[in-house]
Amino acid sequence: MKILAVGSIAFDTIKTPFVRGKNVLGGSLTYFSLAASHFAKIYPVGVVGHDFKPKYFKLYQKHNIDSRGLTKATGKTFSWSGQYDYDLNNRRTIYTHLNVFTNFNPVLPPAYKSIPYLFLGNMDPQLQLSVCHQMTNPRLIVADTMNYWIERKRKELLTTLKLIDILIINEAETRQLAKEHNLYKAARKIVSWTEPTRRGGPATLIIKRGEYGLLMFTRKNWFSLPAFILEDIFDPTGAGDAFAGGFVGFLSRQKYLNEKNFRKAAIYGTILASFCVEQLGPKKLIKLNRRQIQERFKKFKKFLALI
Amino acid sequence: MKILAVGSIAFDTIKTPFVRGKNVLGGSLTYFSLAASHFAKIYPVGVVGHDFKPKYFKLYQKHNIDSRGLTKATGKTFSWSGQYDYDLNNRRTIYTHLNVFTNFNPVLPPAYKSIPYLFLGNMDPQLQLSVCHQMTNPRLIVADTMNYWIERKRKELLTTLKLIDILIINEAETRQLAKEHNLYKAARKIVSWTEPTRRGGPATLIIKRGEYGLLMFTRKNWFSLPAFILEDIFDPTGAGDAFAGGFVGFLSRQKYLNEKNFRKAAIYGTILASFCVEQLGPKKLIKLNRRQIQERFKKFKKFLALI
Repeated sequence: MKILAVGSIAFDTIKTPFVRGKNVLGGSLTYFSLAASHFAKIYPVGVVGHDFKPKYFKLYQKHNIDSRGLTKATGKTFSWSGQYDYDLNNRRTIYTHLNVFTNFNPVLPPAYKSIPYLFLGNMDPQLQLSVCHQMTNPRLIVADTMNYWIERKRKELLTTLKLIDILIINEAETRQLAKEHNLYKAARKIVSWTEPTRRGGPATLIIKRGEYGLLMFTRKNWFSLPAFILEDIFDPTGAGDAFAGGFVGFLSRQKYLNEKNFRKAAIYGTILASFCVEQLGPKKLIKLNRRQIQERFKKFKKFLALI
Repeated sequence: MKILAVGSIAFDTIKTPFVRGKNVLGGSLTYFSLAASHFAKIYPVGVVGHDFKPKYFKLYQKHNIDSRGLTKATGKTFSWSGQYDYDLNNRRTIYTHLNVFTNFNPVLPPAYKSIPYLFLGNMDPQLQLSVCHQMTNPRLIVADTMNYWIERKRKELLTTLKLIDILIINEAETRQLAKEHNLYKAARKIVSWTEPTRRGGPATLIIKRGEYGLLMFTRKNWFSLPAFILEDIFDPTGAGDAFAGGFVGFLSRQKYLNEKNFRKAAIYGTILASFCVEQLGPKKLIKLNRRQIQERFKKFKKFLALI
């Protein structure tokens, strides 16, 4: 199994009421790749600065992540700082220094173009579109976006969405993208944009709700999954990308990309996200093994079992 | 099947961005009884004022609700007014006139004391305790409470809880009752108060999360259930009591009061709450039939089906 991922690598400075960290390795590629690496070989495409130490490349390699698609550019690595409230649902950005990410233009190495699974981290929808166009025969394209692009590049985003299979966003972004306050109606609207062609827009929408889990909408159905409840949550940074990693990772091993497998993939995504938030930055994801994932998967299924 | 319910009957004046109603029949007894009446014969015990018209007694009787336990007192019926935000999660109380409810002292008719199932609506924990003491051999006692009593009558509430099997409260109340911010730890704490006697405290805690569904904690397990997603929500008033009605109603028909049935009962509670919020006050509950409940139950189970 091979998964291509395009997005950001960052150094994050994080403050929560429980932990603090300075220049912690982060970015969508880091969280996605570490989570997905338990299921497949990951090929991230991104850019880092001259301050990106060899030890990080080694870390990726150790985790089944091929770092040859990471370009080292002149300048500093993208850095971000955020602070969380006591309830961890509210995040305040202290600064965002795009640095080398400003001029990021993802050019896929020829060998990467035929990889069947693609994850597009949150970035300019025009860059996401450019990546889609470089792919020769993708089997599944999953993308993330955020309010910034919905507000500033709506038209471009809508064009990009036409090439996406599954969109993963949060509640506020769903309302904003659909221009509809009622979440159910908003979700229905977004999946209705799909055209009956092979790639006509996101036929599946996953709405992330943080500690309340997720909703998944297809044209015909919806599905709801709670979060895995944890005794201690230390740092929510990267949880959304870790979710995407578990989700796409599981799907990359499936023969059929149907709703049943989407639901099972959402459970794996939830499990990976639950590990992610248990320690600062990607610390827990780095130490994780497959046995732990399987154990929590079984535990979670038991908690979900209904009647 | 017989269920005893003790609580309030009120006239509610409700404003939501979608509907408005003046002096709408409400109170925990109304919502609980209408919801539970699809499963069992309901015996509410409460007080109404001289302004309570015969048509309301007739309405109860028509719905398998025996109104002989409702006392007519001198004065006006309890009345409440509330206003909801556009997102319906925030409620602002405009006024609360307790009226005849001020001197409510529930004395059970002799024939009521042996009813096996008891629901205690939100009220002074000392009144709840007095009802428990009047019961001869209850099989299941389910209770609601609120921040008002947690703050003002904490000691009395803790005494009452010793006689309760299942407590149904919201997230903020859970934190407040346990004096613990982390919801998981707070829930664990509350169920740990149980003593290993027949009635040692709420061995099961249900945390209502509005549009995000519920969490159920027992000493060993937890279980999470999303809300039934609706295209249109008009008025959340009474949803918690309608949930309790479906929950206790289903359980009153079960041979075993075990976790498996508690989970299934929570689905029925969720279904009844989902109907409740679709129209103003108890309007939808009044028109509801069993076929509609079963249809939505099947639909919901499909949306929950995992893998």
